[in-house]
Amino acid sequence: MDNRKAMALMTDLYQLTMAQSYFQSGKFAPATFSLFIRAYPAHRGFFVAAGMHDVLRFLEEFAFDSAALDYLHAQRLFGDDFLDFLKRLRFTGDVRALPEGSLVFKDEPILEVTGPIIEAQIVETFIINQINLQTLIATKAARCVHSAAGRPLVDFSLRRTHGIDAGLKVARSSYLAGFSGTSNVLAGKLYGLPIVGTMAHSFVSSFESEIDAFRAFVASFPENSILLIDTYDTVEGARKAVQVAREMAARGQRLRGVRIDSGDLATLAHSVRRIFDDAGFHEVKIIGSGGLDEYDLEKLAKAGAPYDSYGVGTKMGVSGDAPWFDIAYKLVEYDNRSVLKLSTGKVSSPGRKQVFRFADGRGRFVRDVIALADEELADAQALLKQVMEQGRVTQPLPSLKEIREGFLSEFERLDESIKAIRDPATYPVEVSFRLRQLQETVERRIAQAH
Amino acid sequence: MDNRKAMALMTDLYQLTMAQSYFQSGKFAPATFSLFIRAYPAHRGFFVAAGMHDVLRFLEEFAFDSAALDYLHAQRLFGDDFLDFLKRLRFTGDVRALPEGSLVFKDEPILEVTGPIIEAQIVETFIINQINLQTLIATKAARCVHSAAGRPLVDFSLRRTHGIDAGLKVARSSYLAGFSGTSNVLAGKLYGLPIVGTMAHSFVSSFESEIDAFRAFVASFPENSILLIDTYDTVEGARKAVQVAREMAARGQRLRGVRIDSGDLATLAHSVRRIFDDAGFHEVKIIGSGGLDEYDLEKLAKAGAPYDSYGVGTKMGVSGDAPWFDIAYKLVEYDNRSVLKLSTGKVSSPGRKQVFRFADGRGRFVRDVIALADEELADAQALLKQVMEQGRVTQPLPSLKEIREGFLSEFERLDESIKAIRDPATYPVEVSFRLRQLQETVERRIAQAH
Repeated sequence: MDNRKAMALMTDLYQLTMAQSYFQSGKFAPATFSLFIRAYPAHRGFFVAAGMHDVLRFLEEFAFDSAALDYLHAQRLFGDDFLDFLKRLRFTGDVRALPEGSLVFKDEPILEVTGPIIEAQIVETFIINQINLQTLIATKAARCVHSAAGRPLVDFSLRRTHGIDAGLKVARSSYLAGFSGTSNVLAGKLYGLPIVGTMAHSFVSSFESEIDAFRAFVASFPENSILLIDTYDTVEGARKAVQVAREMAARGQRLRGVRIDSGDLATLAHSVRRIFDDAGFHEVKIIGSGGLDEYDLEKLAKAGAPYDSYGVGTKMGVSGDAPWFDIAYKLVEYDNRSVLKLSTGKVSSPGRKQVFRFADGRGRFVRDVIALADEELADAQALLKQVMEQGRVTQPLPSLKEIREGFLSEFERLDESIKAIRDPATYPVEVSFRLRQLQETVERRIAQAH
Repeated sequence: MDNRKAMALMTDLYQLTMAQSYFQSGKFAPATFSLFIRAYPAHRGFFVAAGMHDVLRFLEEFAFDSAALDYLHAQRLFGDDFLDFLKRLRFTGDVRALPEGSLVFKDEPILEVTGPIIEAQIVETFIINQINLQTLIATKAARCVHSAAGRPLVDFSLRRTHGIDAGLKVARSSYLAGFSGTSNVLAGKLYGLPIVGTMAHSFVSSFESEIDAFRAFVASFPENSILLIDTYDTVEGARKAVQVAREMAARGQRLRGVRIDSGDLATLAHSVRRIFDDAGFHEVKIIGSGGLDEYDLEKLAKAGAPYDSYGVGTKMGVSGDAPWFDIAYKLVEYDNRSVLKLSTGKVSSPGRKQVFRFADGRGRFVRDVIALADEELADAQALLKQVMEQGRVTQPLPSLKEIREGFLSEFERLDESIKAIRDPATYPVEVSFRLRQLQETVERRIAQAH
């Protein structure tokens, strides 16, 4: 997964054809590209920016190896002088970005890349790919955490994430947004995440009887067993689990919990809780899972379903109700000239930018202003920070734990109406006077040129 | 991407906890797991099975390296004897599977894995992950190809696929299902796919004027230029492209085409076609792109929009209207005993299986029968083939080109009503008498045991 040297080819062919044309036209002046999300998908009122860590590492290590150059040569599209240029090409530009885990809203730059136009252009595909995925999942996961009303959530999505890289990034992004852990062992190893998991239905059905399966499992994990009780009949399964819990108690052990993965989860949880409580096992936890998303978690919370935690899988791991963002990486300045595009439905906004966030006396976020990069607005926090200079990160990257804590404390400062998982209110984002002026000037210039 | 040795940890933790419990319970008998899709998402009438290539390579190379074992040791969940067992563990089982690129329907096994239960269980997560993604995308892509009514399609999705692995697998799976190529350079290199691409809006806006950008690009690619004409105004852009085409003609060169990426694609294509035809440039191609999926492609085909080909991106690359399948890998036999689960909404069917496909006199597929593996049905094709024996592939894997040709010729044999991209008819899939009998027997046995 970390074969980064090959990653320079992880791009659209047009990045390379454009690069050759820039090269042959002698266009090497600095360009700034701005990455932002153009629209809220249904029911989204905020985004959680993520993926900067991978982007910065990619930029630091960007290079075409000889196998890549041989492949490009064989395409008969590129001249030898250009391939020689590519061989020496490194990313030497600057990046200004929101801290990973920041709350961000429609149209606000998540990051801006400035560098010689070929360098800043050629990295577009990888940057969008990673920021889109990780922001998508961090946002979805934050919605799940919010609607679970304090119950811990664990990422169970690996089997249905879109491939291996997504499996890893989903585990990381959901943890960043407040999940407690993941079932994904490799992600646990790579990112230092808590890993969680016990048994599947196949374990139960491989034994002659359900209770044999439970007994075998607790024999292997006397301190750490969560028994899956819905393979045949959930209520019957709960009774067998109680029997096993009694046997464990007689040995001085404790059953940790049971998991319900199908059926009417709210009703079953009440029944199962009563069975354990009646038997005196108040401390045995109930974990819910099975196709859950934020909408289900909200329903379960409202129904007072006595789950202690949840496993959240597929619908979070693919952001099922909104599996992509309308995210764009747009040229906003070339050779000190502000630029934009006017394509129908995709008009972009010119110039290098800064986002300013205003809070009220209690620290609650009240509005943002998108301004030009050289503006200064009093009493507001400037969100974009310089994170890379001349191709090198300017300071050590924060740990995932720090990012997670930063996000959670920011999220507390966002109004409940914006966090709502259905029909959220719109967080106020304004455009500064100078930015509006620039937009009009550039549009007039283009109209005249045509 | 191909750091396969680490891939054994690409699993859910519960696969490893179950494995330890099987190990400690002395359960090493052979098990068979069956992979199938439980339900059609909206508007799906068929699936295109894909991903077997990656699964077989994963199984051949399956091993825990010392870093993986050290990590597991540090979790304090696993005994030394079990970790020592893992260190020596390889996949020694058998796999029966549909040929990659096969048409497959709800409930039909895509593959069956038979081996010592720990081996067959522990590989579940990776197998589901890859078959789900690749089948999902091959199915979506086949729908796009079908609705484009003969116009070539190119994969433009890399920037919005869910990460790097998805970007590669989407390029491969869409090609398998009939796409003509991809913009993804690394996928082109890894899989030998045709790569395609020319310019972005940023290229145009980096120049003082649109026509300067066009001239620079055709100077670099005199034989291979597709000009993007919608950065400011599509019709004006087309007129400038005509001017450049004239300049090229005067030099004995030919403009290859133009691309329209926004606005009312059908109307614009007619206007742009007229502009080029009026100027005598009948051979200049028009390429359409911009958020297209099979529903848009069908509309454009019905409107007779004069596009010569299309770039298809995000909605294909994430399977936007159905971003996951309800796919399952279920234990169906353990130690020669047929098993199933009865969880609400997820009842599985016992025993090792075979799928038989019947065709009419003209070779058209008319119905399938899911039967037990040892059944033989006259006049039908048995679809599952032995592809791995004792952990080794039994014969060279087909090339991607062979897989693609196999799919395309199978797809011709499927009735139009099943291929419909909205409200398709249901392809008839029956269950054999003996399989129904076995299901009843096993359900009765479980009822008695409880």
